[in-house]
Amino acid sequence: MANSPLRVASIGYAFMGKAHSQAWRNVASYFDVPPVEQAVLVGRQPDAVKAAAQKLGWLSTASDWREVIARDDIDIVDICAPGRMHAEVAIAALEAGKHVIVEKPLANSVEEAQRMAAAFEAAEARGQHAIVNFNYRRVPALVVAQRLIADGRIGTIRHVRAAYLQDWLTDSSGPMSWRLRKEDAGSGALGDLGSHVADIVQHVTGQNILAISGGLRTFVTERPAGDSGGGGILGSGGGGPLEPVTVDDAAWGTGELSGGAVVQMEVTRMALGRKNGLTLEIYGDRGAITFDLENLNELQFFDGRDAAGEQGFRRILVTEADHPYVGAWWPDGHIIGWEHSFTHQFAEFLWSIRDSTPSTPSFAEGLRVQRVLAAIEESASNSGSYIRLD
Amino acid sequence: MANSPLRVASIGYAFMGKAHSQAWRNVASYFDVPPVEQAVLVGRQPDAVKAAAQKLGWLSTASDWREVIARDDIDIVDICAPGRMHAEVAIAALEAGKHVIVEKPLANSVEEAQRMAAAFEAAEARGQHAIVNFNYRRVPALVVAQRLIADGRIGTIRHVRAAYLQDWLTDSSGPMSWRLRKEDAGSGALGDLGSHVADIVQHVTGQNILAISGGLRTFVTERPAGDSGGGGILGSGGGGPLEPVTVDDAAWGTGELSGGAVVQMEVTRMALGRKNGLTLEIYGDRGAITFDLENLNELQFFDGRDAAGEQGFRRILVTEADHPYVGAWWPDGHIIGWEHSFTHQFAEFLWSIRDSTPSTPSFAEGLRVQRVLAAIEESASNSGSYIRLD
Amino acid sequence: MANSPLRVASIGYAFMGKAHSQAWRNVASYFDVPPVEQAVLVGRQPDAVKAAAQKLGWLSTASDWREVIARDDIDIVDICAPGRMHAEVAIAALEAGKHVIVEKPLANSVEEAQRMAAAFEAAEARGQHAIVNFNYRRVPALVVAQRLIADGRIGTIRHVRAAYLQDWLTDSSGPMSWRLRKEDAGSGALGDLGSHVADIVQHVTGQNILAISGGLRTFVTERPAGDSGGGGILGSGGGGPLEPVTVDDAAWGTGELSGGAVVQMEVTRMALGRKNGLTLEIYGDRGAITFDLENLNELQFFDGRDAAGEQGFRRILVTEADHPYVGAWWPDGHIIGWEHSFTHQFAEFLWSIRDSTPSTPSFAEGLRVQRVLAAIEESASNSGSYIRLD
Amino acid sequence: MANSPLRVASIGYAFMGKAHSQAWRNVASYFDVPPVEQAVLVGRQPDAVKAAAQKLGWLSTASDWREVIARDDIDIVDICAPGRMHAEVAIAALEAGKHVIVEKPLANSVEEAQRMAAAFEAAEARGQHAIVNFNYRRVPALVVAQRLIADGRIGTIRHVRAAYLQDWLTDSSGPMSWRLRKEDAGSGALGDLGSHVADIVQHVTGQNILAISGGLRTFVTERPAGDSGGGGILGSGGGGPLEPVTVDDAAWGTGELSGGAVVQMEVTRMALGRKNGLTLEIYGDRGAITFDLENLNELQFFDGRDAAGEQGFRRILVTEADHPYVGAWWPDGHIIGWEHSFTHQFAEFLWSIRDSTPSTPSFAEGLRVQRVLAAIEESASNSGSYIRLD
Repeated sequence: MANSPLRVASIGYAFMGKAHSQAWRNVASYFDVPPVEQAVLVGRQPDAVKAAAQKLGWLSTASDWREVIARDDIDIVDICAPGRMHAEVAIAALEAGKHVIVEKPLANSVEEAQRMAAAFEAAEARGQHAIVNFNYRRVPALVVAQRLIADGRIGTIRHVRAAYLQDWLTDSSGPMSWRLRKEDAGSGALGDLGSHVADIVQHVTGQNILAISGGLRTFVTERPAGDSGGGGILGSGGGGPLEPVTVDDAAWGTGELSGGAVVQMEVTRMALGRKNGLTLEIYGDRGAITFDLENLNELQFFDGRDAAGEQGFRRILVTEADHPYVGAWWPDGHIIGWEHSFTHQFAEFLWSIRDSTPSTPSFAEGLRVQRVLAAIEESASNSGSYIRLD
Repeated sequence: MANSPLRVASIGYAFMGKAHSQAWRNVASYFDVPPVEQAVLVGRQPDAVKAAAQKLGWLSTASDWREVIARDDIDIVDICAPGRMHAEVAIAALEAGKHVIVEKPLANSVEEAQRMAAAFEAAEARGQHAIVNFNYRRVPALVVAQRLIADGRIGTIRHVRAAYLQDWLTDSSGPMSWRLRKEDAGSGALGDLGSHVADIVQHVTGQNILAISGGLRTFVTERPAGDSGGGGILGSGGGGPLEPVTVDDAAWGTGELSGGAVVQMEVTRMALGRKNGLTLEIYGDRGAITFDLENLNELQFFDGRDAAGEQGFRRILVTEADHPYVGAWWPDGHIIGWEHSFTHQFAEFLWSIRDSTPSTPSFAEGLRVQRVLAAIEESASNSGSYIRLD
Repeated sequence: MANSPLRVASIGYAFMGKAHSQAWRNVASYFDVPPVEQAVLVGRQPDAVKAAAQKLGWLSTASDWREVIARDDIDIVDICAPGRMHAEVAIAALEAGKHVIVEKPLANSVEEAQRMAAAFEAAEARGQHAIVNFNYRRVPALVVAQRLIADGRIGTIRHVRAAYLQDWLTDSSGPMSWRLRKEDAGSGALGDLGSHVADIVQHVTGQNILAISGGLRTFVTERPAGDSGGGGILGSGGGGPLEPVTVDDAAWGTGELSGGAVVQMEVTRMALGRKNGLTLEIYGDRGAITFDLENLNELQFFDGRDAAGEQGFRRILVTEADHPYVGAWWPDGHIIGWEHSFTHQFAEFLWSIRDSTPSTPSFAEGLRVQRVLAAIEESASNSGSYIRLD
Repeated sequence: MANSPLRVASIGYAFMGKAHSQAWRNVASYFDVPPVEQAVLVGRQPDAVKAAAQKLGWLSTASDWREVIARDDIDIVDICAPGRMHAEVAIAALEAGKHVIVEKPLANSVEEAQRMAAAFEAAEARGQHAIVNFNYRRVPALVVAQRLIADGRIGTIRHVRAAYLQDWLTDSSGPMSWRLRKEDAGSGALGDLGSHVADIVQHVTGQNILAISGGLRTFVTERPAGDSGGGGILGSGGGGPLEPVTVDDAAWGTGELSGGAVVQMEVTRMALGRKNGLTLEIYGDRGAITFDLENLNELQFFDGRDAAGEQGFRRILVTEADHPYVGAWWPDGHIIGWEHSFTHQFAEFLWSIRDSTPSTPSFAEGLRVQRVLAAIEESASNSGSYIRLD
């Protein structure tokens, strides 16, 4: 029994399903994790899911997630389905005794997130594990950043500047997509990108956002009807009648962290030239760090203890054997890619199951992020006034 | 008479006086400007002003600015004195028929700025000229940026991200300074750095800020008493009893430009590692630009017209003969320094006098900046609510 | 038969074996390649090879490469063993009718490389395929570079500047390793790093090195005896008696390309701070490109056709769907890692087998690289005089 | 007499004359130097020299350098004339008892440089001073580099990589210029750019080049006849009959420093996209530095003493009060330009006169550079063989 592998069922095989699959397929080749098996890939279209399963390394397929959850031989349910399904599937899986991974953001609303967190509390008492997949926590450079801060190397933080800039919606004539419908996606850049920003800011600093003033903007309010929910980021169709865009193209907020820092955040899908520009700047009274996801193997670190006249931002190429996770991969200087953060995340999840330690990022942390997003929406409806978070 | 030089009186010889002096001393060596003479340097301490005049190239000195303004042989009054003196000196000089240069920000309050703008309106009718010295408008890279936008190369602007980050107040035990007293400096980072940001954002985009939500923060609320108003940026003293800091260490705002863009701004003197980090990012639907004052000879330009697969931010080294102002200096690739922006500004001023064309940045533009700063202060007092600017 | 997978035997499971394994394990998840099976991993120590096989995804193991080559059910022999074994194993495999992949450099000497190329010529006539794994040809940014040059966008090339700088031998007290013994490794930085440089220069420019003047240097001539041939890059031992280092720590050359360009190259394992710094600069009369392997998702491109005043090196983030190979991975801006170049290489190899097209990099190209390395050695023995290559 | 200013005569008012003039005009405004006076500007065309003198701040003009040198009221002779005049003018000025500044390179040949060094030896015994103006020694970032090396922070140097890349000759149809005629310019990129590289490498490392293997290349061997010796870098004419280019477009060398390091150098005027790209990389066993003149306010420093996992190249913005020379200019982070290096150089020269200390860079150092250039030419004529320098 101890040697039988943890059997995974994954729901969804679009962009995120593909990323999760690669992590399951490779995690044991690099990390000493409990044995794990890609047992079943779940999707509604049998032919498509079979083709995906073969390509992505899954042993079998299924079309009804409820049946899969009911099976005894599944240990982990990995949810890559659209946000509107997260709460229902995750709660059912937890109630069925499964460990659960939910792709971020945790849910489409605070209410859903609260129910999920409650369901997990009950499950945790039964020895189950669950995480929301804020994978950027596992980018080695950001782990180094988090440790430097935890070790006091940055000192008292005064400023956090965070942005997540993409440009795939720049073209006003681009087609409609499920990601631009509120009922499917919950929100736009706010949930998709803002959730990453809110989580990484709080995680790396070790502080909570206490209050926030923010706003939302939809630059392009209608687009030609396109796909009806397929896999690509942006629907390929277009040319149909105009359909209203019901989510934000951009969102922002200025808040206060529990340690007193000012945090300024901005996310958008309309910053031409920025492809995947999650940037983070943290300034304390002893040091500073900056990071850019487009260059994720690097961390810039300014150490205020360096001798006068010799200070400067130091480009740490976070690819050395003694950097977190990196020793498992290649020799110094051989960079890793974006998807490796998923592999690290899943290794951590498997270790926490093996060791019966708390799994993170927890649903409670996912709920906290949801509250930040909701506060930005509320502030946006109140002329930018600060909203307190409890 | 046509050949007699324009005679300048400059008030103040600290940091800004030194920068202005270099521009007067050198402008005619590089640009075809009307003859100009460094006639008199004005300061209250006779010995110090004499020493400064000799070092900085002034032909004579005086201690009473009123007497100097009253003289017939002075054509231009150049005000580098602290902000609290701007309105009084500038209005008196305008009334005495002089051309006037006021160091930025124009004034310590909207009310002062309004009076100055009114005084200039009357003077303009008499053929006088006046500017507020937002010198960064004359950084060649920012001129290129402004022209690209004016030519439609950036398209409809969606996002402007601007920051001015310095770190000289990071140390909490650093001494008090006149710059940290509201009665002397008007405000802290807001007026000193925020005025540059507000001006450059509006100037480069060619748009006005219509509304803004913002805030202020003083991280270190008292400091050991230091100097009593000397020349250095930070007093050298310290060690005395604690004195309250009455200005902001940091300020920020998120606003809307007249063309519909979202503009996010942040200024601080506590971003460790940033020495003079005025950064600007502008994203449109056809192109994007970024700029960093610590690297002021460069402009990054993303041209959305470049072929697919070949797009990227292009580092334009703005040091070529056909770049603005640059042909007057050195061959391609020989970079210029921060102070050269003053030389360009003064050349522009002298040309506008010679050609009887409007001088810019005008007092009206300086007043508009002042209104932005006041709106941030008002928003800060109103829980971050948006304040409309007329 | 058409549907039966190509069955691979891989010899070696250290650094390179691990990299090759990941490519075999994942190539079919991203690219439409013929079915392939990780059939057998070959190594001399049964326990170690079994453990490696399980981790890296191999279905079985073997300890004698001759037996494996003799098997009918093996289609591809993938040689990751030390350089001294390349010729013997590759020639045997080719004679046994297998397709062959040889890790770079092709051999430890020109003579070996010649025999291998001859063996392949005979095998090619029988429909077999073989490559030497110069994987950097498959880095997307370098494919873009190669295409820009082939399309005439760089124009007539005048200068190529190439370097491969690492620092893992900087410490003079570091232990001896098989990589520092001539009988095992053939040469030092010259073969290990210089082979990459010589290949990528010739491949990207599409030109051959016609003549070269060069040199070699061993900075640390003896080191404490360490490992006896294990897997790590640098032996972990040390502390033993001093053993002579019989290979070069650094090598360099200045040559002439067939198109008339000057090419300057330098490789070293002693450039402190450079972890995996393969850099390439190519200057033509119409454009220029630069590249750095530590940042392998980026290509810098200077287009001489850009308007005057708007020219500059453009940072192309080579992560877009229409960039080579990249569409198979993640959305725009999601960077890939170093190992992905192996996946691309193996996909190309499988495609060439499927389509019966020539496989590259060919043994002939590997031989040409070997001749460049030999010419540098010869020049080094002749006071730096130019050596002509036929 | 002690208070009477040092009176300067400057010969030449093209690019270099303009740069020297600015230094004379401004040096006393920033540095505590002995009083200095821009006494006379010397040039052959009376109208042109008068116009230049007025623009550049000279009190008078003259057309015959011999007469000026004969005058009693001239203390310093500053030679910005073409290289072919250096030896004659400098020797005459030294014999006339003047202090002398010679623009680099010291001469057009080793023989001339030897005579100049000999003339200075005699003059030095009489208390005179002379320098060759290798102004990059006075770039603050390079002073920091030189000090780090002198302090042992880089350790034993293994590799020096230096290049000076420009692109103004890229266009094959560009016109002929005096700079491309051997009888006027002595050599091409070799003397113009290579002299800077040879000097800065030897100065910053504190080591001499002992032997060198090198080469020269003229890519464009004839150009349309253009100017007959005017001021611009490149003649404006063109369109005339083709005239042979008799100097090199590019030069290179690989040498050995006295401390055992390998130094690789390359200079060219045909690296499209590089405007003024003097780059320097120095790798030792304790640290490393890199520098780029296009970004001259920055130094990159890798400190091998930094903790494992926190190492990286540190961007030192060399604009702080405690950096060399910088305190005299502006507050932290306010960058200086290319021409400031001349101001620093002249301040150093004036201080050495005041203090009767040796002036540097000395003629002996200029001669040593000349020998390096001659060795490259000799090696180029001997198939790249190493040439020993005594």
